Amino acid sequence: MEISIALKAGEAAATVPMYEQIAAQLAAQIKGQVLAAGTKLPPERQLAEQCGVSRTTAINAYRRLEEMGLVRTRVGSGTYVAEGAGEAALPMPWHQLLVPAWQSPVSGIIRDLVAMDAQGTGISMATGMPDPRMYPWDAFRELLGREEMAMADLGHIATEGYGPLREALAARHAAGGVAAGAENVAVVAGSQQGLYLLAKVFLNPGDYVVVESPTYLGALQMFQAAGARLLTLPAAGPLQLDLLEDYLIRYRPKLMYVLPTFQNPSGRVMPLAERQALLALAARHRLAVIEDDPYSDLYYDQAPPPPLKALDQHGGVIYLRTFSKTVFPGLRVGWVVAPEAVINRLAQEKQYVDLHSNNLAQWLLHRFLAGGQLDGHLAAARGEYRRRRDATAHALRRYAGDRLSYVAPGGGFYFWCRLTGRATTRTLLAEAAREGVSFVPGDAFYPGTEGDKEFRLCYATNDAAGLQEGVRRLARAVAAAEKQGGAARTGAPGPRPPII
Amino acid sequence: MEISIALKAGEAAATVPMYEQIAAQLAAQIKGQVLAAGTKLPPERQLAEQCGVSRTTAINAYRRLEEMGLVRTRVGSGTYVAEGAGEAALPMPWHQLLVPAWQSPVSGIIRDLVAMDAQGTGISMATGMPDPRMYPWDAFRELLGREEMAMADLGHIATEGYGPLREALAARHAAGGVAAGAENVAVVAGSQQGLYLLAKVFLNPGDYVVVESPTYLGALQMFQAAGARLLTLPAAGPLQLDLLEDYLIRYRPKLMYVLPTFQNPSGRVMPLAERQALLALAARHRLAVIEDDPYSDLYYDQAPPPPLKALDQHGGVIYLRTFSKTVFPGLRVGWVVAPEAVINRLAQEKQYVDLHSNNLAQWLLHRFLAGGQLDGHLAAARGEYRRRRDATAHALRRYAGDRLSYVAPGGGFYFWCRLTGRATTRTLLAEAAREGVSFVPGDAFYPGTEGDKEFRLCYATNDAAGLQEGVRRLARAVAAAEKQGGAARTGAPGPRPPII
Repeated sequence: MEISIALKAGEAAATVPMYEQIAAQLAAQIKGQVLAAGTKLPPERQLAEQCGVSRTTAINAYRRLEEMGLVRTRVGSGTYVAEGAGEAALPMPWHQLLVPAWQSPVSGIIRDLVAMDAQGTGISMATGMPDPRMYPWDAFRELLGREEMAMADLGHIATEGYGPLREALAARHAAGGVAAGAENVAVVAGSQQGLYLLAKVFLNPGDYVVVESPTYLGALQMFQAAGARLLTLPAAGPLQLDLLEDYLIRYRPKLMYVLPTFQNPSGRVMPLAERQALLALAARHRLAVIEDDPYSDLYYDQAPPPPLKALDQHGGVIYLRTFSKTVFPGLRVGWVVAPEAVINRLAQEKQYVDLHSNNLAQWLLHRFLAGGQLDGHLAAARGEYRRRRDATAHALRRYAGDRLSYVAPGGGFYFWCRLTGRATTRTLLAEAAREGVSFVPGDAFYPGTEGDKEFRLCYATNDAAGLQEGVRRLARAVAAAEKQGGAARTGAPGPRPPII
Repeated sequence: MEISIALKAGEAAATVPMYEQIAAQLAAQIKGQVLAAGTKLPPERQLAEQCGVSRTTAINAYRRLEEMGLVRTRVGSGTYVAEGAGEAALPMPWHQLLVPAWQSPVSGIIRDLVAMDAQGTGISMATGMPDPRMYPWDAFRELLGREEMAMADLGHIATEGYGPLREALAARHAAGGVAAGAENVAVVAGSQQGLYLLAKVFLNPGDYVVVESPTYLGALQMFQAAGARLLTLPAAGPLQLDLLEDYLIRYRPKLMYVLPTFQNPSGRVMPLAERQALLALAARHRLAVIEDDPYSDLYYDQAPPPPLKALDQHGGVIYLRTFSKTVFPGLRVGWVVAPEAVINRLAQEKQYVDLHSNNLAQWLLHRFLAGGQLDGHLAAARGEYRRRRDATAHALRRYAGDRLSYVAPGGGFYFWCRLTGRATTRTLLAEAAREGVSFVPGDAFYPGTEGDKEFRLCYATNDAAGLQEGVRRLARAVAAAEKQGGAARTGAPGPRPPII
């Protein structure tokens, strides 16, 4: 009998062996019932000739099909399609087997923005990424070439992290007023993992968590995915301590999550007196406070007040830091500073998640810190980001005039802007996409449905010229959005048709 | 007034600023009520003289105490200990706030073994670690020095992994008979994270999982922590398909977890016919099978049969691989090969856990694979581990004689031994510790209370000479344990006193 085989040439042929290609094609024909059960296949010699391959290759192809249970060889008789090989089995019901996933209502928007950024066609002012041109990779490469690594450092290490890095981080904190030993430090795979583990060890579904509003969307998603109920404090003005106290008495929340320094997205810095008052209230109610602090090293005017963790007399603050904004995100290194009871419990959970974080990045960061290079790098970063902040502020004044209101931030990565006219962020998002500029719409930072006049602009990723052009495009998009006017084309709340 | 301050000298003084040291000591005295509320502290000039520091340092020390809310400065009057500063607040109730942790009954033993290994005093044949002397770090360093890295590769990448590495892994699998595109591959932080994510997306508490018995203890812990109920199939002899079918009908398990190639700990290789029969049964019942395969590249006689994944006509196999045993554990890189529906769900979960795995290791592994260096490294590793396996087998025959029974493995890292006399593994463990040699006791690999006559010896970490000495010590320990006889000094089941 004649069978139809078409072999690949070129690159594909080089990676997939010839006998696999032949076997795969015959398998498809058997499973598709083109070759029926009991059909005698051509002898190996004939198959070899037909495909222009060696006899060994033909033999291997049949062996492979036999392995797959699709053919049977009868000695002295030949190779036959096996019984039942072509039966159409029921498909695997994967979607029934999988545990349902929690889906954030804004994850669709975020995915679209990341995809747009990845295409690289527009000017991204959306994702909070440091500028790749500022990554200190050359210094890292130099360290890798120069310093000897002990091979044991590449094996399994403690779940809490690479010892010398934990020591160095603890010493750095002690110098900054945070009393911590290495036993108070756990290295995690980015502050994302820190939040994940904290949610895991503190939250049962239904627990209350106090958050600022707006706040970091990754934290909102994490707490919501853990089944927590969120209590919000306005982040824009002074901390509303009376409201917080009401929450503490009425709901007994498990945690408070707060970004006191260059808050994301608002840019606000909590003044010293407010920090002290917050801590006094937290101590009185024995409230555990997660202080997320990715930006305090990135100040462009004066240094911010000490972190809550440095002011905390009660030991109730869990301090979350990361190298993703100051060094680079691909390191996947963040760290948690906390009482030992919390560190131990986090490590217990992290052991399940990944045993420990990757050693290479931890080793590199330790040398980078120990050699004093991190401080030099931070000083340079502050200078460059200050220029970018100023360029953005200048461009906003020049191009957007009074169509946008905002406060220029003293540090961090973001301008938090508000549309002063009748346009909403959803209209603006569509116009901005047309102009080739992106930002994150404000509603992503609220647990509710607020934020339809607000948006976040990141000024860290582009240089001054790029930022000027980005703001120019944005201002055109604002003007166009204002002309259209609001509700009809926006996603803002309107009459809701019943879902039938 | 005179206050007592003792400043650190030397290294500690260099890392913690002088004013912090002074502030910390005063803070301790205030909180300990050595200095009562309202006490007037010495003027800055006097404090400076007393401590032998500059006046600025003394001012900064008082400022720090003010930040902490421990003192108040009255202009023109001086610095006073604040009211309420010394009050003993209730401690943070961390243990009540934390979600209870699942504790494995064997985790204590494992911790002790790891601690003993870390001390490096004895010969470790316990943890399943490759020999650090064989890590291909020089090749990695050479790659880092030679190849240019795109800075974007150090930023955020897709949660599923670094694109070129996913492509390379998929091509490698396709060449080995596993039909997979990059979309079927997710890079994870070691196979540990693969197991974690799979447990997370498949298991609800109470779900049934079929496992071999004995099997990899990390998997047992993971499934138990997820609240799964375990159904066991004996791993020592041929697969009991009738028992499996009974489980499938009676309990409808969500998953089966299996190590078909150089099983951990038994070393067994499932023959081809058994693999086919298992898959036929799995397809009929639409059972999802997790195939964990850390060792198939480490064969020392003939190559093992194809993985289940290569034989799977039904698409029900999820294939878990790692570079921890073949390259080095500190990379924290493993991968999952699965249908897209599963990969997507894993990625959704992994996004919460750590956004993505570290880029540096993924970039290095991609270059290591693309340059063909992995295959050369594997060939060398096979040669060296074969020598070690042979040395261990030889030493066991010579020193332990018929006191131990075992089957020399054809690949992987382990001898699975059974005590033929009256000693139990717990007695042996104590004797072995005295001799300075370690192994993992058998009960760690069983979900129940079996395994008190069995233990696992890892022959990968030490060289032939070390293995010979290790086995010699072990044989002495076996002889000593046999002399003592069993139950009284062991942890084997005996009369249980009531817990009152």
